[in-house]
Amino acid sequence: MTPHWISELRDLLGDCVRTDEATLREHAADKWHASALPQAVVLATETGQVSATLKFASEHGIPVTPRGAGVGYVGGCVPVKGGIVLSVASMTRILEINPSDGVAVVEAGVLTATLQEACARVGWFYPPDPASRKESSIGGNIATNAGGPRCLKYGVTRAYVLGLTVVLADGRILRCGGRTHKNKQGFDLVGLFCGSEGMLGIVTEATLRIIPTPPARAALHASFPQFALAAAAVQNTLQGGHLPCAIEITDAYTLAAARRHLGPSALPAEAKGHIIIEIDGQADAVASELESIAGILRDTGASNVVYARTEDEVEAIWQLRREFSYSLKATGLTKLNEDIVIPRSQLVDLVRFCEDMQQETGIPVACFGHSGDGNIHTNIMVLKDAKGRDIREPADALVNRLFNWVLQHGGSITGEHGIGLAKAPWFSHAIGTEAMELHRALKTALDPAGILNPGKMGL
Amino acid sequence: MTPHWISELRDLLGDCVRTDEATLREHAADKWHASALPQAVVLATETGQVSATLKFASEHGIPVTPRGAGVGYVGGCVPVKGGIVLSVASMTRILEINPSDGVAVVEAGVLTATLQEACARVGWFYPPDPASRKESSIGGNIATNAGGPRCLKYGVTRAYVLGLTVVLADGRILRCGGRTHKNKQGFDLVGLFCGSEGMLGIVTEATLRIIPTPPARAALHASFPQFALAAAAVQNTLQGGHLPCAIEITDAYTLAAARRHLGPSALPAEAKGHIIIEIDGQADAVASELESIAGILRDTGASNVVYARTEDEVEAIWQLRREFSYSLKATGLTKLNEDIVIPRSQLVDLVRFCEDMQQETGIPVACFGHSGDGNIHTNIMVLKDAKGRDIREPADALVNRLFNWVLQHGGSITGEHGIGLAKAPWFSHAIGTEAMELHRALKTALDPAGILNPGKMGL
Repeated sequence: MTPHWISELRDLLGDCVRTDEATLREHAADKWHASALPQAVVLATETGQVSATLKFASEHGIPVTPRGAGVGYVGGCVPVKGGIVLSVASMTRILEINPSDGVAVVEAGVLTATLQEACARVGWFYPPDPASRKESSIGGNIATNAGGPRCLKYGVTRAYVLGLTVVLADGRILRCGGRTHKNKQGFDLVGLFCGSEGMLGIVTEATLRIIPTPPARAALHASFPQFALAAAAVQNTLQGGHLPCAIEITDAYTLAAARRHLGPSALPAEAKGHIIIEIDGQADAVASELESIAGILRDTGASNVVYARTEDEVEAIWQLRREFSYSLKATGLTKLNEDIVIPRSQLVDLVRFCEDMQQETGIPVACFGHSGDGNIHTNIMVLKDAKGRDIREPADALVNRLFNWVLQHGGSITGEHGIGLAKAPWFSHAIGTEAMELHRALKTALDPAGILNPGKMGL
Repeated sequence: MTPHWISELRDLLGDCVRTDEATLREHAADKWHASALPQAVVLATETGQVSATLKFASEHGIPVTPRGAGVGYVGGCVPVKGGIVLSVASMTRILEINPSDGVAVVEAGVLTATLQEACARVGWFYPPDPASRKESSIGGNIATNAGGPRCLKYGVTRAYVLGLTVVLADGRILRCGGRTHKNKQGFDLVGLFCGSEGMLGIVTEATLRIIPTPPARAALHASFPQFALAAAAVQNTLQGGHLPCAIEITDAYTLAAARRHLGPSALPAEAKGHIIIEIDGQADAVASELESIAGILRDTGASNVVYARTEDEVEAIWQLRREFSYSLKATGLTKLNEDIVIPRSQLVDLVRFCEDMQQETGIPVACFGHSGDGNIHTNIMVLKDAKGRDIREPADALVNRLFNWVLQHGGSITGEHGIGLAKAPWFSHAIGTEAMELHRALKTALDPAGILNPGKMGL
């Protein structure tokens, strides 16, 4: 049944309002399993349309679920209350790349990789590198405050957002921050919207900080006979005065899956732990620092160290990293990828805890990820029954145990993906009563009618 | 007249409540000229006392002005509405320096330099470096989101705050963020309090991110026959793929004052512009990068380049930088130091605008500061009348013209010091109607009775 307000919305906005079933279906889900059909989709191409939609929706009490590229992992853009999905995916203009000011100005729908390529063409660099950067957009990166391997050195998306155009719940257009690299004009409104998952306003345009491209980069990877030695190598590298762009770690289960998937020559048979380190900077520095880090890894018990000194070689190492992920998929099992974060010193304890759970339940748990900042992708592998159907309940119980362990050990249940729908059941427990009350107060202050992305974060 | 509630507060908190005149006077002002006496001062030594004070004050509607080390530049801790000054200056415990987790946990009253020294003793590094770091505290640094020269490479205070203990206006104790380096659990509450100038809550404890100390650092300084060449050297250095820790620039007026103050051998007579560049990193890299940057400066017209390769030599360059500031004081004129920020490409236009104002009015304007991020300390020198009294009005009019120019050119009226009382008259104009409304909504949501640092930011 078509709601009465749709024709009115179409009168207001014209052809960018869609209600055909194909479009509704395309805007029902992200990469998580939840799905819900909206009643209408607005394909905005300019801020004015976003403003008009929100003004209309707030006057009529219609839920509005903002959507970027729709490639999130927590159901953050699933329109669970129906109403309107407001997509900014068509707002794809790069308005400015300006090295003299060190800024890029882009619309929210620009893909992160597209921006990075545009910066690279003039010798500049936008560092945040979520794994999804070829398909995720700046708007979504801001909504989730996206991270990536390189955040160890370069920080997350927030560190690169200088100014925003945000449409508020009632349709007012807010410009906050600006194009200066420092700005102490009042409260940090830019930060308030970064990571707010479309619940406080809709970002339509961003002014981003860009930096000079480091002239050189290099990488290495190394296998260890014990996971604990790989974890020790992470600490020893940092303690040695190095701050690599990225330090990725991989556990024994994942390595075994990779050897099965890639063939025995890909990795040493005895590898129970593995790290990838990428560095960048001045060419001379990169060459000597690579040797220095390799020395630290050998001293910490690395069984082999492989250097990558050219762009192709570095890319090959990151391809190996991607293959780890594909290897887990190649097991045929569904993986529940939890992006937990722990204090860095607890890497070994986390992996031991996961191995113990696996021994006890028979459910495999695969850990790999951004060890430098303790952000480990912990994959609980869902077993199948005789008919090939996922046996979800015991796996879900393991997620529960994992989150409790993480919170008891000073960790966070999400470092990159956000809360959305997927993590909402644990959210209040994770942040505590006072923080939850503050979330409610902020939500009420910015969206009193509760029309913006309703049903997320348990708010 | 002692208000009736003071004896009640003393019953509640004991000796940490002070009403003697000396203590009241010590807590009446910061480094700006405004001053107002509180009715009582609470010298808190633990979070519980801060909580009890705010609970009491909110129940009785008593204004509470939070105070750290009291060395701000905008009157941010002046108790303009009387009531209680709540000082956290005595909360000076360093609770933990933990390289394995990459965190330091400190109370709000710890001086920034003290924290940096404690980190350095274990080979680690807390980068934010406000010029006041030997006398300003972490609590104040967080309240103002303090910057410093090194922010070009390392970012401002916000980039190093992982978790906070904050006492809310009604006395509730909020713990937000945590000790993980990434955290996507809901809205960015940590960021909301960073830079909120004590108007949304009182920070009593912080968990800070620390990084490995770069093994080497070096610096150079160079004079130029024109300011525009110095500004071009800033751009050329960045465009050459270098990201120094700091790039400081100084104008002709300041250089002339420095030559008068320090003697003619300190700087070349023809110097009309001057830059200081500091780099850090691996030792090999620093040595070769220093040469590379020096080459860029010479190619851009530097008349002399002086290297600093040892710690003592680097320190001597920074001492020269401090002497620039003392040289302006040595003119005998009062300086109004405005910490404006402009897009980096407009450095030359800013200085030309200031020179034009000076020519027109006879009032000297001295510009120097953090050119890499466009954060230029613009000092309007207040002339004196025949009796040696400051002639304030024409200087204040120049501040007004400066701020208007900055805002028209995409800049910010404050990059480091904040709004407080000093910049409140321009605040609403600087951020716009919608942002001002949002400030009011946030203030009301977090401090409905308006007891926290009332009278600041025009809120």
